[in-house]
Amino acid sequence: MSISFMTTYDQLRVNAERLWRDFIELSQIGETRTGGVERLALSNEDLKARLWFANKLEATGLHVYDDEAGNVSGVLSAPNPKSKTFLIGSHLDGVPDGGRYDNAVGIICAMECARIIQSAGIKLPFHLEIINFTDGEGCWQSLFGSRALAGKLTENYMSDSPNDYAPFRAALIRAGISPSKVSHAHRDPNHIAGYLQIHIEQGYRLDEAKIPIGIVTNIIGRTTHQMTFYGEAGHSGTTKLDNRRDALRGAADFISMAHNHIREKYPQGVFNCGNITVLPGAFNIIPSEARLTVECRHHDERLLTEMQNYMFKLAQEVADTHHLTMKHTLEIHMPAATMSTTIINSIKTTCENLNIPFLEVVSYAGHDAQMVFDITPTGMIFIPSVGGISHSPKEFTEWDDIVRGANVLLQTVLRIADEYAQL
Amino acid sequence: MSISFMTTYDQLRVNAERLWRDFIELSQIGETRTGGVERLALSNEDLKARLWFANKLEATGLHVYDDEAGNVSGVLSAPNPKSKTFLIGSHLDGVPDGGRYDNAVGIICAMECARIIQSAGIKLPFHLEIINFTDGEGCWQSLFGSRALAGKLTENYMSDSPNDYAPFRAALIRAGISPSKVSHAHRDPNHIAGYLQIHIEQGYRLDEAKIPIGIVTNIIGRTTHQMTFYGEAGHSGTTKLDNRRDALRGAADFISMAHNHIREKYPQGVFNCGNITVLPGAFNIIPSEARLTVECRHHDERLLTEMQNYMFKLAQEVADTHHLTMKHTLEIHMPAATMSTTIINSIKTTCENLNIPFLEVVSYAGHDAQMVFDITPTGMIFIPSVGGISHSPKEFTEWDDIVRGANVLLQTVLRIADEYAQL
Repeated sequence: MSISFMTTYDQLRVNAERLWRDFIELSQIGETRTGGVERLALSNEDLKARLWFANKLEATGLHVYDDEAGNVSGVLSAPNPKSKTFLIGSHLDGVPDGGRYDNAVGIICAMECARIIQSAGIKLPFHLEIINFTDGEGCWQSLFGSRALAGKLTENYMSDSPNDYAPFRAALIRAGISPSKVSHAHRDPNHIAGYLQIHIEQGYRLDEAKIPIGIVTNIIGRTTHQMTFYGEAGHSGTTKLDNRRDALRGAADFISMAHNHIREKYPQGVFNCGNITVLPGAFNIIPSEARLTVECRHHDERLLTEMQNYMFKLAQEVADTHHLTMKHTLEIHMPAATMSTTIINSIKTTCENLNIPFLEVVSYAGHDAQMVFDITPTGMIFIPSVGGISHSPKEFTEWDDIVRGANVLLQTVLRIADEYAQL
Repeated sequence: MSISFMTTYDQLRVNAERLWRDFIELSQIGETRTGGVERLALSNEDLKARLWFANKLEATGLHVYDDEAGNVSGVLSAPNPKSKTFLIGSHLDGVPDGGRYDNAVGIICAMECARIIQSAGIKLPFHLEIINFTDGEGCWQSLFGSRALAGKLTENYMSDSPNDYAPFRAALIRAGISPSKVSHAHRDPNHIAGYLQIHIEQGYRLDEAKIPIGIVTNIIGRTTHQMTFYGEAGHSGTTKLDNRRDALRGAADFISMAHNHIREKYPQGVFNCGNITVLPGAFNIIPSEARLTVECRHHDERLLTEMQNYMFKLAQEVADTHHLTMKHTLEIHMPAATMSTTIINSIKTTCENLNIPFLEVVSYAGHDAQMVFDITPTGMIFIPSVGGISHSPKEFTEWDDIVRGANVLLQTVLRIADEYAQL
């Protein structure tokens, strides 16, 4: 059966026109004046996008399934009800003032694959589930939906980001998600056949190399910290210059130094300071407190730890210089992840058969794949981001690259199914 | 009459116990957990303090007068209704998380003087008006009340701080102030005999020199600017390091450099960055915008201009280095002010007669006196701030210094009255 399976279907391609219509429709949900999209997880726009997705799935004849964590799926059932489930996942939600691609394209490509496979009448050896994960961007909690599915939510998951507890809870309830039942979204890994995801690269390597497909080998590890410098408030005009304990001055020195020194010492790592809150915040008061949100990324877990300790050391030195105190709290730790060699090879073979150049890449962004890589064989396909720009209205991927990626996804799924059937 | 006037009353002193009770009562309005006071202009706490003030004035038998800008006064009328008015002013409002002294002590000392003069049955040659100015700290608009009184409000005064237009308007209306009638608070300078203010120094010079009285010669000039660095948002993990246009990185470099270089180049000047707002502000996005509130102070108007131009130059250089753009908007300009030699001399003679050491000082803080110095003879008396700490719950002035200051104020008013009567 298996040989004929691939032979029969290796000419199968996605319907690019239908894909285009989906893309345009989806881009309009939450579109911004600057030509981007803002669809924060569980916002009205996100809920609208989920409805659009569910309606499309239903129209296709797929089973729509909402789990306890708000993940929405379309399931193409295998003839054998006892089959395992192969997941193709992504997220409809996005960052504030984001673009149209991250990662709407993952959803439309996956949905299109399911439609093609269904209309071709292919009987797969597993249930094929196209899943939209809740909060892929971590507006409330990083990779919330896939985290719940993988059974990795802590018991007090809502307290994990203390600032947002009340609005997070309200947002869940408003979306029909019962906070106490979220853990029920956990799937038994024995029932999962694998996980595959197509995503824009959000980086510049494919675009620079003019290679249309990236095959992810590793996903970068990431830690997010709250770092606070404490000084002393005082009148901005009258306080003796030598006696000032200016928390923002220290924070500014730290940000400058961290960018320069970490980049030099850990060229493979990435440091970002994405926000800062100053207290009391009046023009005529010396800042007494500066609270920073910082992030470290490295694909090597050991170096990630080393890098963040170096960052703390820098911050402490700056604090000492300015007679400040400094405190840091870990908010998120996403360990680095490794993709399945089997799936990597399936994608490779697919690309070779389709005559499409590919590049093995590390993902510098976090993905839902990071939540499931240790419970099921996991793979990721990247398509180019022009200029490497992402999380911005200027995010752009050539349409041909999206169609090409969708076809690689389709053929990879068929190849994996073929191999799976032979087991 | 004039000789006997001073001879008769030169032994007159304030009632320290009554002053202490006032201080304690007032400290309780808006007191914070850290032992400070928060009484933002037009907040519930500020309105409560005004009510307390008005009740005290009324109980003393002074005429309570609310002007169109929300300034509250107690007036001790001169026998001759056509007399000019001599103002002793200060402000009950304070900064966020401020102390108990700035400048509640100015109000209680002034009120106590009026009570002493009244109960002594002294007939002054001018109406004596103890005035609480609205928003002395510039929570809404810098020196709002004294600005209105001096006729210096612009026609679109509420639009002058664009961010706060709606809440400012609401706060005025809630306090019974009609936004369109505020300009009616303008006083004819020909009806004003002079202005005197007692204030904590908020600096360290009196405390360090162990001198109990400061006589202000000049008030520092000040400009407040909104400075914004514009970069480009991008994914914090995937954007190429060399392509990042990180607005916060630039802002941090600027803050660090401005503190170092401005301090070196303009040792008499003061630079402060009191707040910063970052957009979009997510941990996983490169900041696209960093908006800073900065302030320059210098007692020399020419050097103030030079200093702020140097600051813009620094900011532009940083912006160029990081491929950012930079924009700056002037929010406040308070020109430097000179105190009246006549009043300075009256305070000096008073101190000499009372055998109290004094120091001539520049005020590094802005004061309501700055609004009236060019329409009427103006003077300021400083009392020491321990450690120079102000705009902080740790603000402290020795009680004896407050009583001493109140007596200098009282005797100075009598001396000015005496001199005035001789004209």
